[in-house]
Amino acid sequence: MSILVVGSVAFDSVETPFGKAHNVLGGSAAYFSTSASFFTDVNIVAVVGEDFPQEHIDFLASRGIDLQGLARDPGKTFHWEGRYGYDLNEAHTLATHLNVFESFKPRIPSSYADSDYLFLANIDPDLQMDVLRQVNNPKIIASDTMNYWISSKPESLRTVVKNVDILIINDAEARQLSQEPNLVKAARKLLDIGVKTLIVKRGEYGVLMFNGSSVFSAPAYPLEEVFDPTGAGDTFAGGFMGYLANTGDISDDGIRKAIIFGSVMASFTVEDFSLNRLKKLNYREIEERYRSLKAMTHFEGLPEMGISV
Amino acid sequence: MSILVVGSVAFDSVETPFGKAHNVLGGSAAYFSTSASFFTDVNIVAVVGEDFPQEHIDFLASRGIDLQGLARDPGKTFHWEGRYGYDLNEAHTLATHLNVFESFKPRIPSSYADSDYLFLANIDPDLQMDVLRQVNNPKIIASDTMNYWISSKPESLRTVVKNVDILIINDAEARQLSQEPNLVKAARKLLDIGVKTLIVKRGEYGVLMFNGSSVFSAPAYPLEEVFDPTGAGDTFAGGFMGYLANTGDISDDGIRKAIIFGSVMASFTVEDFSLNRLKKLNYREIEERYRSLKAMTHFEGLPEMGISV
Repeated sequence: MSILVVGSVAFDSVETPFGKAHNVLGGSAAYFSTSASFFTDVNIVAVVGEDFPQEHIDFLASRGIDLQGLARDPGKTFHWEGRYGYDLNEAHTLATHLNVFESFKPRIPSSYADSDYLFLANIDPDLQMDVLRQVNNPKIIASDTMNYWISSKPESLRTVVKNVDILIINDAEARQLSQEPNLVKAARKLLDIGVKTLIVKRGEYGVLMFNGSSVFSAPAYPLEEVFDPTGAGDTFAGGFMGYLANTGDISDDGIRKAIIFGSVMASFTVEDFSLNRLKKLNYREIEERYRSLKAMTHFEGLPEMGISV
Repeated sequence: MSILVVGSVAFDSVETPFGKAHNVLGGSAAYFSTSASFFTDVNIVAVVGEDFPQEHIDFLASRGIDLQGLARDPGKTFHWEGRYGYDLNEAHTLATHLNVFESFKPRIPSSYADSDYLFLANIDPDLQMDVLRQVNNPKIIASDTMNYWISSKPESLRTVVKNVDILIINDAEARQLSQEPNLVKAARKLLDIGVKTLIVKRGEYGVLMFNGSSVFSAPAYPLEEVFDPTGAGDTFAGGFMGYLANTGDISDDGIRKAIIFGSVMASFTVEDFSLNRLKKLNYREIEERYRSLKAMTHFEGLPEMGISV
């Protein structure tokens, strides 16, 4: 089944302790759709400017991503500049030039309206709601957001999280949105305000999933080389939704496997700038890391030791 | 089989965002032995001063801990004062009064020399080596250390880590000892210099274990209330070694289960100051958290999705 993603396609300029990249392909929808394309068909709704090169269009098309919803508006493409120190969990934004993204109004092509899986990447929550009004009852809707919307549009954001099935945010966002520093309590508060399934991304420390009845803790794949964490979260979401859409299995077991696929995909993205690592990736490598994560987390059930209480 | 632990018994004065405790029972050997006592017999070698109250002696004895090796020297008991901010992963030491611990020279009672399991808690690495010369070929030796010894006695410490089976340290110590910021590379460097099994404690993010052939990633038990992290690492080590000593199972599977028991024990310690939570703990509660961690980390093996490479 196909996925619809609504988000950004951008140029990123990134500096890490290991190197620099200037004006490379980025944006939530680019990372998400490339990642998901390993598992299923993807429809993208985003906007680029007149400066967006054919090379990037060709790459996305080569991944089988449907680009009918990729608008090209007069002006320049969204450009983000950021820097990471040795603590790769924290991005320092140097500049955000929204350009054509500033007036982005997602228009869902009629051929996309029946997509069974929908990912609302980090955009204005009012636009996320606007997307929801344009689609026909998707089977699973997931959404992301960021600190800016949590502080500037809290009410709109609350409406979004009540209307989606899965909220995928990072630990700082979970704390900010719930106004609760303890993550377990934060999760409970978010479930209380209507989040059905909460997935908390913790960078190199993996992912925690909470729903009313189950908690799942998944480690990040331990890497010897983390080159650039940009896009890891959207790549995670792409692998996660890609697996769900491929199998249609939205049981607790299915969600857990989807989280592992998401983590595997993210582990590749951070090994190079931009989408460079995903461009070289093949499915055998994905399988191999899934198996490694399985072996790395396995332990046997409670042993009987005859200890009296 | 019995465990011998050599370390400190202390008074701690601790301040966290949630409260204060003054002059409460602490020290690596106190946390370790209490935790291990849930699983097996423990022999303790440590020193206290004339001010150490009978109440604490009675508590340790009530846990079945053999106190023949607990020396009482003229002077005052070791006293540590520390503070934690909201980032409970980092302790700020306010004062360290070594007192009788300054001239601590571990003497292993002859009845302890045949202990099959030995834990060298964080003391001067020269004293750790001195302990090794006083014991008769234990089945498993594990050791801990701290930043102070890594910088002040690197050569002695290298000798220790080559002579033990398992090194149990935190992530900052692993990075400092290996002089390598990436944890996976740090682990490889430590294995290269002769560490056989490396266990890296990452506070609320759980534990990573590396040996030549296997990597194991265990989450911390997600808690709604983390009150005081003091002693979590030694409590972990106590549960870990306690399980190994109880079962004698030092296979990869056994080490993994031991890590889970260690994590479970640590999750109780941080729920209150000092050993207060362990004082009220019973084995059913330990079993329950083990089962929870199992359920929380389980996911199924690689699904077949018919994706071509």
